This record gives sequence, C-alpha cells and structure tokens, in this order.
Amino acid sequence: MNPILTAFKTSPDRGRGLARDMPARWALEEVGQPYDVRLVTFAEMKEPAHKALQPFGQIPTYEADGLVLFESGAIVLHIAERHPGLLPTDADARARAIAWMFAAVSTVQPPIVERERAFLLERDKPWFDARQPALEQEVRRRLEDLSDRLGDAEWLDGPFSVGDLMTVTVLRRPAGANLLADYPNLAAYVARAEARPAFQRAYADQLAVFEAASAG
Amino acid sequence: MNPILTAFKTSPDRGRGLARDMPARWALEEVGQPYDVRLVTFAEMKEPAHKALQPFGQIPTYEADGLVLFESGAIVLHIAERHPGLLPTDADARARAIAWMFAAVSTVQPPIVERERAFLLERDKPWFDARQPALEQEVRRRLEDLSDRLGDAEWLDGPFSVGDLMTVTVLRRPAGANLLADYPNLAAYVARAEARPAFQRAYADQLAVFEAASAG
Repeated sequence: MNPILTAFKTSPDRGRGLARDMPARWALEEVGQPYDVRLVTFAEMKEPAHKALQPFGQIPTYEADGLVLFESGAIVLHIAERHPGLLPTDADARARAIAWMFAAVSTVQPPIVERERAFLLERDKPWFDARQPALEQEVRRRLEDLSDRLGDAEWLDGPFSVGDLMTVTVLRRPAGANLLADYPNLAAYVARAEARPAFQRAYADQLAVFEAASAG
Repeated sequence: MNPILTAFKTSPDRGRGLARDMPARWALEEVGQPYDVRLVTFAEMKEPAHKALQPFGQIPTYEADGLVLFESGAIVLHIAERHPGLLPTDADARARAIAWMFAAVSTVQPPIVERERAFLLERDKPWFDARQPALEQEVRRRLEDLSDRLGDAEWLDGPFSVGDLMTVTVLRRPAGANLLADYPNLAAYVARAEARPAFQRAYADQLAVFEAASAG
C-alpha cells in the first residue's frame, strides 16, 4: 500500500505549488516513494472525519500502515527518516538539517505569512499602506540573514537536505518571493531547487489536480 | 563537558520563562542532563561571532562535542533523541510527538506571536483597536481546535513528550495565555506542565539570571 496524502480539491493557489501538500509530494518524489492522494474540499476539511486526522482542519495529512501524521514539516521529516537521500547520515549534520527545517517554519516563515495575510485580508483597510513598510522590513531581516549565511554555497549545509526543502518551500511564498530579486543568491538557490526533477514532478502533479478541478 | 546554551543576559520577559532558552532548559531538566549557560547581550547577539552560531542573531544556541545547533525546536528534539523520557519508543508514536512539535511552532504559535507583536509595536497606532478582533479570532481558532483535540486527556498523545513541551511553551505566551480561561482544559494542561519539577527547575534558573542582571 502506498502512503496517502490529502490535498485541496481546488487549491486557492491555483496550482502554483504553494499549498502545504507540495513539500510532502516533493519529499516523496526525492526519495522515489510512490504515493496516492485523496482530495478534500474546504467544507470536508472542517468536518470531524478530517479533523480526526488533522486537528486544525488543514491539509496535508499522511497515512501509511496505520500511522496518521499531520504538519508538513513532520511529514517531510518522517519520509526523510524512512528513506535515504534527504538527511545526512552523520549525526551532527542530521541535527543541523533538522534545525534548518525548524528555522524555515518558525523563523523565516512567520513574517512572510504575516505580510501575505495583510495582502489577503487587509487590502481594503485604511491602515493597509501604513503597515506595509514594517511588514516588508520584517521579511527582509530574515532574508538578509539567510542570504548572509548561504553566501555562495549551493545548499545551506552540505548536500541538499530536508532543511533546504522546507526553506525553499517557505521562500517560494509570494510575500517573500517578490523581494528575492534583492537577494540574488537566494533567488538562485530557489531556482536550483525548483530545477530538481523531483520538484518538477511534484509541481506537475499538484498542477494537474488544479487543472482537472477547474475543467470539471 | 556539559552542553552550553546561550540565553539573554537581560531577558525582555523579566524572567517569566518566555524567552526561547526556556524550552531547551526544560528539556535538559526533564532528561537530567546538566548544562552550562553563556549569557549574551542584545548587541552581542547581532555580532558575527554569535551569528556564526545562530544565523538570525537569536538565542538559544546549543553547543556540545563540536555540534552547534540553533532553533529551540531543533535543540529540544536533539536532546530528546539522545536521552530517554521525552520521545516514545514506538516509531509511530514518536512521529506523532514530532508532529505536535511542528504544530506548536508553525500552526499554534504564529497567530499568538502576531497578536503579541500588535501589542508591542502597534499599541499607539490609530488602527490598533480595529485590528484586535480579527487577531484575537485567529488565536481562538487554534485554541479551540487544540482544546477539542486534547479533550479530557492529560497530554496530547499518550505520556508527556516533546510535543507537549513545545505546545505548552507556545501556550504560555501572554497573547494566547490571556485567553486560556475560556478553554479550561487547556488552562489545566498548561498548569499540569508548569507543575512538573523539571519545568520548575528550568523556570527558577532562568529567573535567577534575570534577577542577578537586575541586581548588578
């Protein structure tokens, strides 16, 4: 039996690989593990049957051999622990790769999501413009530190790892991505990751879901 | 040689256990691993020597036997992997405990931090009051789902684990904690965690640092 991911039946990102199933698909493609997808609507995500799998009514979930997991970071780490290729074998390097996963979701991502939420939810508010500079500055602080650390390296810490996979996932969100031109090494880093065949396959698969739903 | 954590020389939380060294201290106390602390000032945190350890100029860092780690979640997980007591031995239960860690820092925490940042940075802005209901509602959505999942269980998934440690750490932040009275099972859950001897020791130690700095 293949593992099963849940994903949006109609993703609000219109298939641009920004929904949270994308990092899980990408990790499964990197390690060569086939998987199945069960699509859910927004209404279904908030129903008890889905919340039994995902307490916050979100996607993705991951089901395999009786295990039910949620949180894209946890799913990606679980996949990386069960297949070679996404975590270094050296114990210290492995711990550092996991540190980059946590940095991606809890340090780099929050100001990006906050800026994104202002665009989505406060665009028509009288304070929208006045809040923009501070929101942008918070994103830039993280991008600048990340750019300084990456330098001219190919990946954050040795070979491509789950740390890079989650960091690139976060950097692709538009509220950060639309500033990346000012950080050429980060822009090149994201482009390198997007060129990986596993990313391409995952991207094509999630886009196909959106296109099928739109055509249906 | 004991592991070394970095922590604020003068914590902005005035020793209330809200700085990011707290979960690392707590985890080390839970597993009975002695540790040393190196205190850093705000200015020192932004200097190259500290940024070589922590790319975003934050605390804590963790140094042990040549390994340098950052991100409190990653440090807590690393400690839990090297000592018994904070991660289930069953592989599936272990993966679920790690899922709760990611849920804590990337799903429960962001709206709490966003509400906190409005209190800290936008208190004097003309839009402060108008934004409050939506900010509060976002926190409540997470608390309600978490409360539903916890139910009348003692901990989130079997015995106390790193998942509880990180979730309680997040729930203790005032911008969420000041709503907990409406979720009695979450309030009791946090109180149970705070009553643990390991929490008490970690709390006392970080408070002693603040009091020594204030007296100095």
